[in-house]
Amino acid sequence: MSISEDVKKMKAVSPYMAASTIEKRNAALNAVKDGLHKSKDEIFAANKLDMDNAISAGIGEAVLKRLKFDEHKLEDVIKGIEQLISLPDPVGKITLNRDLDEGLVLKRITCPIGVIGVIFEARPDALVQISTLCIKSGNCAVLKGGKETANTNRVLFDVIKTSAESAGLPEGALLRAESHSEIDELLALDKYVDLLIPRGSNAFVSHIMNNTKIPVMGHADGICHIYVDKSADFEKALKIIVDAKTQYTAACNAVETLLINRDIAKDFLPLLSKRLSENGVKLFGTKEVTDIINATTIDESEFKEYLELAASVKLVADVKEACEHINRYGSHHTDSIITEDDEASETFMQLVDSAGVYKNCSTRFADGFRYGFGAEVGISTGKIHARGPVGLEGLVTYKYRLYGDGQIVGDYAAGKSSFHFKDL
Amino acid sequence: MSISEDVKKMKAVSPYMAASTIEKRNAALNAVKDGLHKSKDEIFAANKLDMDNAISAGIGEAVLKRLKFDEHKLEDVIKGIEQLISLPDPVGKITLNRDLDEGLVLKRITCPIGVIGVIFEARPDALVQISTLCIKSGNCAVLKGGKETANTNRVLFDVIKTSAESAGLPEGALLRAESHSEIDELLALDKYVDLLIPRGSNAFVSHIMNNTKIPVMGHADGICHIYVDKSADFEKALKIIVDAKTQYTAACNAVETLLINRDIAKDFLPLLSKRLSENGVKLFGTKEVTDIINATTIDESEFKEYLELAASVKLVADVKEACEHINRYGSHHTDSIITEDDEASETFMQLVDSAGVYKNCSTRFADGFRYGFGAEVGISTGKIHARGPVGLEGLVTYKYRLYGDGQIVGDYAAGKSSFHFKDL
Repeated sequence: MSISEDVKKMKAVSPYMAASTIEKRNAALNAVKDGLHKSKDEIFAANKLDMDNAISAGIGEAVLKRLKFDEHKLEDVIKGIEQLISLPDPVGKITLNRDLDEGLVLKRITCPIGVIGVIFEARPDALVQISTLCIKSGNCAVLKGGKETANTNRVLFDVIKTSAESAGLPEGALLRAESHSEIDELLALDKYVDLLIPRGSNAFVSHIMNNTKIPVMGHADGICHIYVDKSADFEKALKIIVDAKTQYTAACNAVETLLINRDIAKDFLPLLSKRLSENGVKLFGTKEVTDIINATTIDESEFKEYLELAASVKLVADVKEACEHINRYGSHHTDSIITEDDEASETFMQLVDSAGVYKNCSTRFADGFRYGFGAEVGISTGKIHARGPVGLEGLVTYKYRLYGDGQIVGDYAAGKSSFHFKDL
Repeated sequence: MSISEDVKKMKAVSPYMAASTIEKRNAALNAVKDGLHKSKDEIFAANKLDMDNAISAGIGEAVLKRLKFDEHKLEDVIKGIEQLISLPDPVGKITLNRDLDEGLVLKRITCPIGVIGVIFEARPDALVQISTLCIKSGNCAVLKGGKETANTNRVLFDVIKTSAESAGLPEGALLRAESHSEIDELLALDKYVDLLIPRGSNAFVSHIMNNTKIPVMGHADGICHIYVDKSADFEKALKIIVDAKTQYTAACNAVETLLINRDIAKDFLPLLSKRLSENGVKLFGTKEVTDIINATTIDESEFKEYLELAASVKLVADVKEACEHINRYGSHHTDSIITEDDEASETFMQLVDSAGVYKNCSTRFADGFRYGFGAEVGISTGKIHARGPVGLEGLVTYKYRLYGDGQIVGDYAAGKSSFHFKDL
């Protein structure tokens, strides 16, 4: 089985997908919504197969929860589709409209990126979210989901594809990759795929980034920090740290490293140690930390992304040292300062080079839904194109249109004509 | 000699460069302007050395013109700096300001990309343009210019660096790479360099793109097309084609392929052949073309970027076939339609997947100065981040700031709090 030919055809289809009207794209989303409702018994039956296989394979409770696609998850994705329909069209926005000279008009207009490959974890709701984001933004999409939910994905994908085409979107604008070998095929199609969005483990995302010429949007690790400033409100700090560490430990936006101002260490560390131990969190710290509280001594170069109930702790002299540690050891994802001092928080937000810089709140807020974007295709720690949670806006680029009536550069070079640059 | 250590230090300096005020950055640009004036004798003396070496090496007239840095070029770059000073600050713009909930405010704010490596051709004015664009946008820059102007570059760079630091910008924010081996060093520094902008030959840019994990912005080839529609005004078409082909043949935005509507071929091709031959342009065409006019027969798969007085010609049935040819064989740079039919031009502009899509004007308009951007660091044919001529806007990214007062995600997950998403 090979997807290369289908992806090449998709590239030729993509200008027509990009040219589809918002009425057609919204009609497609409505058809998807109806299709999911009508096919729900079939979807749930396919999901039961996946769940049974997973249980036989001895997969743990936490992962099983992600594989499951039930009435509740269906309602959630349908709410998401309704929200997408209500959002304005991200395509065709004029972001620059300039008269270069009399009768020579430059317009910069948003347009879909083209062909997007998304490789995502075994979570059926992710398939619905990603494909509907691509439909709304006029992009063609190649979707490869985790093999543990292959049966559910197949049914969901068929419903979405059939619904979109019945509403008049071009055939071949959506494609499902099934086998793992198709990922390697996809990585080689740099002439036909405009963007890859891999989601999953650090090792998997790094593998993708290192093995393709296609631009990759996403993040490998998520080493998020919380810095507790000397002016911090202790109770606020403890509550935020517990949330950021324990609310969902497997998430990329969970906190991994705590930086504590040295001036408050003797008072704050014992409180922190008690509160985290009550919440089952194991602490690792530099020698200076373990001299004050009971924790495993490690060097700061050993600090890492735990993705479980564990965290690293280090003392710093001030907000600048905190920022320098974060910029050096962090993953430029999301970092928070706890402080009652506005000057300290402004310094932190200015100097920390991350997609999200927070004051007095949990790093777990880094999420497309919580930012009000409706949904996200992923979270980007890159600085090129889109940064942070990526929703509709990150799925479009732009092109420049220049409308003339016979203008040539020679006349401008010779001084016979000159630009006047009037923004319209 | 190694630049790795200096680039690592630059990465640590970059948050402070990013935090510099617009007053300081503009003061630095003013200091650069004055410095260039004051040092002009030294600059011209260094350029004389480079020119003498180039003449001894038998370098041609066209290239010599680019190497030269005289009073005229100095005035040009100084005008460019004055224009940059007058442009608004691209950093610190709030592009999203949203109340997620009472007292939980999300702001998306533009910020510099960080550390940018620019590898450019032997043109001293390019060094001034690129470094001043980086200063205005708060970026640190590693600059590697062509070796043919090494003496001029050294003097220009010293003036710029000294002036910028005297105005209070951080030390180490600008770096000059001198030897070719430093390019390879730079390519390996993906942890410290945020973006590479290579300019030069197709082979050179491709080499860079294939040998680094750092995001690359730019273009390899520039195969630009002009499609002459059946409703075209012939005289307008001929004038535009001559300009696009001959006004500056070595430029990436010069036209290389002419697509002619089959309905007008018998009437238009003889006129085209005559006008281009008067301008010294040699034509290549498919069999169907060379049956009508005198030209060398080649297959469309042999069409290429000539960068000299030569062009390929092919007949197409309609605007859609023209778009399909361009999307398949073009380089997504800039393509133009000549037509008096608005529906044809809208179809062309919609379906052609290029950074610039033009109606009735020369492809040579694809340029940062001609778009009114003041200057450009390069032209991007990528779809990720910036597309087309890249000026100040393409040199910034953004970060999300979230201001809270103790908010945790657990409260929202449990339904104790809920988002209200009010744009401020």
